[in-house]
Amino acid sequence: MNETGLCELAVVGLGVMGGNLARNFASRGLRVAGYQRTVEHAHALAAAHPEARLRIADSLEALVKMLERPRRLVLMVNAGPAVDSVLDQLDPLLEDGDIVVDGGNSLYTDTDRRVARAESRPWRFVGMGVSGGSEGALLGPSIMPGGDRYAWERLRPPLEAIAARSPSGVCVTYCGRGSAGHFVKMVHNGIEYGDMQLIAEVTALMREGMGWPWGQVADTFAEWNRGELESYLIEITADILRAPDPQNPGALLVDAILDRAGQKGTGKWTVVAAAEHGVPIPTIAAAVDARLLSAAKELRTRAEAALRPARGVIQGVSPDDLRDALYASKIASYTQGFALLQAASEARDYGANLAEIARIWTGGCIIRAVFLERIRAAFAQAPRPSGPDGPELLVLAPDFAADVARRLPGWRRVVAAAAAAGHPVPGLSASLAWFDTLTQARGSASLIQAQRDYFGSHTYERVDAPGVFVHTEWPKSSQ
Amino acid sequence: MNETGLCELAVVGLGVMGGNLARNFASRGLRVAGYQRTVEHAHALAAAHPEARLRIADSLEALVKMLERPRRLVLMVNAGPAVDSVLDQLDPLLEDGDIVVDGGNSLYTDTDRRVARAESRPWRFVGMGVSGGSEGALLGPSIMPGGDRYAWERLRPPLEAIAARSPSGVCVTYCGRGSAGHFVKMVHNGIEYGDMQLIAEVTALMREGMGWPWGQVADTFAEWNRGELESYLIEITADILRAPDPQNPGALLVDAILDRAGQKGTGKWTVVAAAEHGVPIPTIAAAVDARLLSAAKELRTRAEAALRPARGVIQGVSPDDLRDALYASKIASYTQGFALLQAASEARDYGANLAEIARIWTGGCIIRAVFLERIRAAFAQAPRPSGPDGPELLVLAPDFAADVARRLPGWRRVVAAAAAAGHPVPGLSASLAWFDTLTQARGSASLIQAQRDYFGSHTYERVDAPGVFVHTEWPKSSQ
Repeated sequence: MNETGLCELAVVGLGVMGGNLARNFASRGLRVAGYQRTVEHAHALAAAHPEARLRIADSLEALVKMLERPRRLVLMVNAGPAVDSVLDQLDPLLEDGDIVVDGGNSLYTDTDRRVARAESRPWRFVGMGVSGGSEGALLGPSIMPGGDRYAWERLRPPLEAIAARSPSGVCVTYCGRGSAGHFVKMVHNGIEYGDMQLIAEVTALMREGMGWPWGQVADTFAEWNRGELESYLIEITADILRAPDPQNPGALLVDAILDRAGQKGTGKWTVVAAAEHGVPIPTIAAAVDARLLSAAKELRTRAEAALRPARGVIQGVSPDDLRDALYASKIASYTQGFALLQAASEARDYGANLAEIARIWTGGCIIRAVFLERIRAAFAQAPRPSGPDGPELLVLAPDFAADVARRLPGWRRVVAAAAAAGHPVPGLSASLAWFDTLTQARGSASLIQAQRDYFGSHTYERVDAPGVFVHTEWPKSSQ
Repeated sequence: MNETGLCELAVVGLGVMGGNLARNFASRGLRVAGYQRTVEHAHALAAAHPEARLRIADSLEALVKMLERPRRLVLMVNAGPAVDSVLDQLDPLLEDGDIVVDGGNSLYTDTDRRVARAESRPWRFVGMGVSGGSEGALLGPSIMPGGDRYAWERLRPPLEAIAARSPSGVCVTYCGRGSAGHFVKMVHNGIEYGDMQLIAEVTALMREGMGWPWGQVADTFAEWNRGELESYLIEITADILRAPDPQNPGALLVDAILDRAGQKGTGKWTVVAAAEHGVPIPTIAAAVDARLLSAAKELRTRAEAALRPARGVIQGVSPDDLRDALYASKIASYTQGFALLQAASEARDYGANLAEIARIWTGGCIIRAVFLERIRAAFAQAPRPSGPDGPELLVLAPDFAADVARRLPGWRRVVAAAAAAGHPVPGLSASLAWFDTLTQARGSASLIQAQRDYFGSHTYERVDAPGVFVHTEWPKSSQ
């Protein structure tokens, strides 16, 4: 690095994620400038990591002057008003062709607003999702940029330098126009909620329903991590279930952790976006609901005391059944998530490439899994636009259809046994109910249409004349 | 009526709902003026119902001059931009203390916006839900006004005159400040979606899973309508299942109706509102998802062909089990809906009275039921503010807790048998999974918190130190 030369890129916001991302850029040979409102923190970061040779600016004005033109600035500030505030401050400092990247967890509708703002300004704007946690930011995250396409071409070399690598390639791609990057990241997180909930349900069934010691649960997950379920979340589950409690010799840490789960909003956003795009995502929604109920610890304690439901032993379920239920539900969940992506891409003109999105999730991010390479291949083989009933579903791809069919008996046994014995499996059962509804050519909604016509004259279609809406004066029983 | 005198009230928008509401007002002795943009339609309506003595105005200017002051105008126009357009036109015509009521199915956030607009104007605004379909509008709907409290006092006599009457009283009450009226109506509709879905699932289990002829299903619903499930929707289900197909002698109409259900958005709005208020409503969400999947007829047809899941006979389930599953799931659904109402009332400062809301739903509206009088009594006996974990739940009221406990074994048998045999029961199973999650004092979220801390350093609480958030450097397996 040339100490007197200009920097190739700036990171604004040097918290855990921003600091690690800056160090990651630097480790790939880039000259990186940094700025943070609490300037002392920025200098401390640079001092603690001299190998990164971060050049710290004491103001945004100074930062802008440190950069090659057209400038590239990556914002890693808290999602929300802080992003707008930085954009307000940068706006008068930027020139034609400069690029501002929002790398935070912004709500996609906020990104839409910022994209629209940037359209009348000389600078270019990119909304970019980053997944992989703090470790991923440092060593190789999955990166989901969207928005200005020209800006993407200029960002591509540095982003490809820092992104995770998997057997499928470098884990960054242009996700699409407008707010596509943040939408894709949001759906990633929704899927992550689903995966975590399904895993939690299965571990609870093993432990509470089948009486397994945690060690056996951990060993089973370690074994599953060598097969079709191989993934980061399965792997760390095995690690977690073996971790000793440092405060209680001989005990396991998992038993000391309060069952009150936090959430930062991306799961909720996914549920809202799915409702607004008319795409059912019951597995992910069940995961969000389960977190909400988990947080209501006091309420659950009183509810158990008031209702005292008996919880019995799980009958007639094998470990393979549990694996099959988890895997089939996972296919259901990913099918829902990708259907949401496709519907949103079409409704919002993202132009997203689902195969590419699956590919960049094969490494670096929290849901990374061997499984995603199979999803990539399925979408690459059959990239079909939506039909009259919406997106083509992943579960209908021949490979996955065969997979689910094989696992269906075990899936049914697990959900049925859990319902019978009183163990909550909201994610597994919502996935199965979705599957059973989806695969029923003739469903039960005829009655619903009849009711709507009866009380509200909403009309209905006849099976022998679809597309023709008729009303019946329904005979009424004497009241 | 004095032909030269001023009218006591106007209805703007004389479609099916507006026209019937105007006639209902007139039938109670009120002098009613009416206006509709297609003036010929308004005159035709008045001519067709001379007994109502509707006075038709040919413009809003003329309409306003027909009214006693302060004026009362009830808008029954399509929800959305049409409401704003009428408000724009009325604004310069109105004077101090005049009252404008939006009686359409407006989204509550639109109502918030209109309430804010009216605050700086001389006229007063009331957002009002009306349920009961076209027949209810004519003969006695359930009416849910909210907003300007002073305006409510002036609206009260005419609204009490036209509202439904039930053994619990007149089915209209002030629902609360701001957009409370439309929020309450939205949740009513969400609950209605849930009821309809649960009924559809149970009828399908009887028919497809147990092989009953429709006549037996109808008879069973007629019998259930004489017990705890007594309600409008149960009653009309029996009617519907007995209706002959006019085009096919000897056949039943239900078999001729296409299983593609419509929806107008209030169910979706309820799901979005619940997500935004952090209240799980999985039963209602399952109903909305089921309608979406029902609409995807072509997709379902292909999915069944591709996946060919076997559907077996339902084993070990009695008719009483089905009734218990329906009733317990209904308690779950209403618990969720009222929890959403309470959470929203507190977050949005509605000041809603849940007992009163249950009371005005005992008659006139689509979900009217004996059951709602029991809900009214439960909330009247224990009107408790939310605790740290949100609203006090209906299912914990002693009466309902005992009810559910009694029905739990049958509920479990139905959900387990349906899952095992391949019959979709998304509403019944989501309700049970919600119940099982709610009543588990120690749930499975410890693992989720451990995972979040492992990959994102999100910290967790220990069971021996709640409220203290700690992070662990998790031991990692070699990769």
